Amino acid sequence: MTDKVVGILGGGQLGRMLAASASLLNIKTVILDVGEHGPAKQVVAPLSSHHAHIDGSFSDPAKIKELAAKVDVLTVEIEHVDADALAQAGCAVHPSPSTIKLIQDKFAQKQHLHARGCPISPFISVESTVESIHAAAASLGLPLMLKSRTLAYDGRGNFVLRDISQAQEALTALGNRPLYAEKWVSFTHEIAVMVVRSTSGEVRAYPVVETVHKENICHLVFAPLRSRDTTLSQRAQSVAMDAIKTFDGAGVFGVEMFLMEDGALFINEIAPRPHNSGHYTIEACETSQYENHLRAILSLPLGSTELKVSSCAMLNIIGLSSSMDDIKALTDVALTVPGASTHLYGKSECRKGRKMGHITVVAPSDAQLRSRLRILLAALPSSPIEETDLYAPNPPVPGSGFSNAHPLVGVIMGSDSDLPVMLPAARILDHFEIPYELTIVSAHRTPDRLVEYARSAAPRGLRVVIAGAGGAAHLPGMVAAMTALPVIGVPVKGSSLDGVDSLHSIVQMPRGIPVATVAINNGTNAGLLAVRILAAGNPKLVAAMDAYLKNLETEVLGKVDRLAEVGWEQYKVAK
Amino acid sequence: MTDKVVGILGGGQLGRMLAASASLLNIKTVILDVGEHGPAKQVVAPLSSHHAHIDGSFSDPAKIKELAAKVDVLTVEIEHVDADALAQAGCAVHPSPSTIKLIQDKFAQKQHLHARGCPISPFISVESTVESIHAAAASLGLPLMLKSRTLAYDGRGNFVLRDISQAQEALTALGNRPLYAEKWVSFTHEIAVMVVRSTSGEVRAYPVVETVHKENICHLVFAPLRSRDTTLSQRAQSVAMDAIKTFDGAGVFGVEMFLMEDGALFINEIAPRPHNSGHYTIEACETSQYENHLRAILSLPLGSTELKVSSCAMLNIIGLSSSMDDIKALTDVALTVPGASTHLYGKSECRKGRKMGHITVVAPSDAQLRSRLRILLAALPSSPIEETDLYAPNPPVPGSGFSNAHPLVGVIMGSDSDLPVMLPAARILDHFEIPYELTIVSAHRTPDRLVEYARSAAPRGLRVVIAGAGGAAHLPGMVAAMTALPVIGVPVKGSSLDGVDSLHSIVQMPRGIPVATVAINNGTNAGLLAVRILAAGNPKLVAAMDAYLKNLETEVLGKVDRLAEVGWEQYKVAK
Repeated sequence: MTDKVVGILGGGQLGRMLAASASLLNIKTVILDVGEHGPAKQVVAPLSSHHAHIDGSFSDPAKIKELAAKVDVLTVEIEHVDADALAQAGCAVHPSPSTIKLIQDKFAQKQHLHARGCPISPFISVESTVESIHAAAASLGLPLMLKSRTLAYDGRGNFVLRDISQAQEALTALGNRPLYAEKWVSFTHEIAVMVVRSTSGEVRAYPVVETVHKENICHLVFAPLRSRDTTLSQRAQSVAMDAIKTFDGAGVFGVEMFLMEDGALFINEIAPRPHNSGHYTIEACETSQYENHLRAILSLPLGSTELKVSSCAMLNIIGLSSSMDDIKALTDVALTVPGASTHLYGKSECRKGRKMGHITVVAPSDAQLRSRLRILLAALPSSPIEETDLYAPNPPVPGSGFSNAHPLVGVIMGSDSDLPVMLPAARILDHFEIPYELTIVSAHRTPDRLVEYARSAAPRGLRVVIAGAGGAAHLPGMVAAMTALPVIGVPVKGSSLDGVDSLHSIVQMPRGIPVATVAINNGTNAGLLAVRILAAGNPKLVAAMDAYLKNLETEVLGKVDRLAEVGWEQYKVAK
Repeated sequence: MTDKVVGILGGGQLGRMLAASASLLNIKTVILDVGEHGPAKQVVAPLSSHHAHIDGSFSDPAKIKELAAKVDVLTVEIEHVDADALAQAGCAVHPSPSTIKLIQDKFAQKQHLHARGCPISPFISVESTVESIHAAAASLGLPLMLKSRTLAYDGRGNFVLRDISQAQEALTALGNRPLYAEKWVSFTHEIAVMVVRSTSGEVRAYPVVETVHKENICHLVFAPLRSRDTTLSQRAQSVAMDAIKTFDGAGVFGVEMFLMEDGALFINEIAPRPHNSGHYTIEACETSQYENHLRAILSLPLGSTELKVSSCAMLNIIGLSSSMDDIKALTDVALTVPGASTHLYGKSECRKGRKMGHITVVAPSDAQLRSRLRILLAALPSSPIEETDLYAPNPPVPGSGFSNAHPLVGVIMGSDSDLPVMLPAARILDHFEIPYELTIVSAHRTPDRLVEYARSAAPRGLRVVIAGAGGAAHLPGMVAAMTALPVIGVPVKGSSLDGVDSLHSIVQMPRGIPVATVAINNGTNAGLLAVRILAAGNPKLVAAMDAYLKNLETEVLGKVDRLAEVGWEQYKVAK
């Protein structure tokens, strides 16, 4: 490992999680921040007075020098530090002070990204005058996003100019600080990617997440992103990695992006440090953003950024007032939610809008994740998060019936006449307590619905589709052609050919697109096959399937006994 | 949450991990142990002098009283404390001092378990005399396990008497401490279950793990246990929970068990605290053993004990000498292993046999887990862990060929004549970099091998079986009858009936046992279906399958262009 000591500028929650991560690897940290008992200082007890934390501002050049004298590497939990003082600290600093300085000034950051071909929305410089704002509005149109160049976060320092008459109001609200203007982009979603960059310039991207902001504050993060655009994740990771390659220095960087209706991506802004949208990595990824930040700044090998769970969300615990009561109520509920891990930052005072902690929820599927999140949201009566935020960007397909609002299996059939054959599949899923949806999708009579259903299946969180059809029976194969999910086909017996027509139509798929075909009219087996597929990697479901098989055996052995007891002449076959 | 403060007797690695877990929930802890900077004290910086850690022995009644005065609940990281002093501490203590006292004395522990009907091997009291040992050997046979009743751990305090002439040697080795004798049990494996018990007596079991001991020291833990005995996990959890229900007090308990050849289970011993065999829960379970211990002793709701990853192992980092060099060499390698999380305990000195840290490895499958572990073991040249420990208790089936030593998919066929049809399945798995094994299993000519293959498939870590067969084609269905895994059937065209015979034989399975049937002779689609099944919940594989489908589309669109360009009269169909 390493004997190097890390100095952290800033002792809030990011410093706390960074220091806790360092402790796992027995890496020593020293914290610089005002106060003796801030969040980060609580979790590191210095081994000696030489490694004692420093009480002082992370913007004070003298204190930065004092910290640098105690450590081997300096890093930051916040970008609003004195970058010039960092440059003269006299020890290694990551990310580099020039990068921190560049990112501090959002206008300079945009200029940098623009010059290097990174996708950003149009922006221009604005003087702190009404006239200059009018000129910007004339150039970029209304509404116009006015932003403070520096010291802005969580929406502070932003003003949306909807009418040019608001120019003076904007100047007052933004405190006459240096400004710039961005063209208003009507994005459909906000997404983010954490990127880790090593001292040698190697970059690795974490999974793309969807961030749900309300009033400019991030409330909820979903990982991984689900989209019916199968290229989106890879594109977003590339944009993020390309952007981070343009900056000097090592560490993790948060890249926030806007996703447009047409699939285009714009970088919104970049944070040169661990980021709120990466908290989920502690419980959900093979290496957390904090450990990877440490590895990067210490020139250790970067860790895997892969998810280790199927589905994850992170809910910020945001103060509603100066009272801790709401926080307690929420965290009490969180203790009852399976897969929920509560993080409280040890802040001594609560206030409206303050991030007091977060809750990460992991689950074996999107369906279970949403069910678990719902319990938390019910404990947040005044939360701005809405029901639709739980589904975005993948709303349910209209008309589907659900055994549960968050289905894992889609059971579809070409016609209502197939229902008697398909109901046993639903009964099996009920038996194994697997949430499903059930509806009619006709390949020939509702072709648009077929496309919509198949393309949306995976991003909506379905894991398996069971499709039943008779006659020409194109439904299972056509669905399989439009999704990467496993599709189970049930041949339904029609009025002629005894179902052999459907069987051959479903099973004889061309090379490249398989359909998992079960016996004619055997909806039961389709349900059981779906359970076997879902059980791969789910020990509980494997045990349930083992029990089911054992039960089949017991049933037949019961008949063995009855046949021996009653005698074959008297034996009556149960209907 | 809670404002209660927790006092921990013992400041080693268990106390460290317990305190770190408490910090996540902002629960304050105070540590009692000798020294100022032990492992646990490093990760908790007291907010005030009232909550300052205590320098003293966790067996010192005065120090225990001093700790009790500072906190609301006392707990232990080690059972070798002064239980009588704890009983008089004057604050809540969990687990209860009487339980700690009972468990401290292994003979009393056995008597307690025996009286309550818990399965343990025969044992008797022994005086510290040669004659008494001879009597015990006469009663329980040789070899005989002689154990010190108290203060024994990691094999210290145990003596295996192989010949009665060793009686005096045993007395000397065991230091003339109070003894008892246990009948030697020739177990096949050692397993363990962590159980959490609430103050109201609710118990929850963690997944059953296999522990690999060498010279009485636990080196390796695998979770979850894989066994072809599908009842084993549930039986072991029941035994463990039943045992813990008999003890007073709250917290987590480690229950170590012996698994016998015939499937019987004996409790070996119980630890009234977080346990080495439960370290894996930090990265691998929905709630760690440490957090659940805190929840239990603070009367908070118990957390979910479910695994959140598919496969996990924990490797202890054990000192080889007083040098830290070996530790550094191992942890340097661990940084390069995906899914490996290193925990170093911050111990200032290393010595032979001392637990300096541990490495948890998680993976999406047993196959990947073993591949990852292999890298770590290669960095441990003097480790007593052998290759076979990686497979136990599920060795490979003889004769199987592997694309990788740790396969995820089994590709089998009834006859070597099926190979040309099945090879394309292997090629697809190669393309998606999915490890598989490939062999011949004939239902009719090697029925015993069929049973062995099917029954061992899931415990060996296979996730999907692809079975090809022609004619009567019983192989896929018979395998499906003997495993809960999804089985994909490939009908192979024979010399007559054009393969319809095999298709019908494979697809027309009775209700209860599905086979996912693909088109006649279509090994490619069998491979692709296996990939789709494995991709459920694996975003990387989903992306790879999406890319595969996109490529099929591009290929056909290329032909569209060529047809338009060349003209249909000139167009030549590629062979």
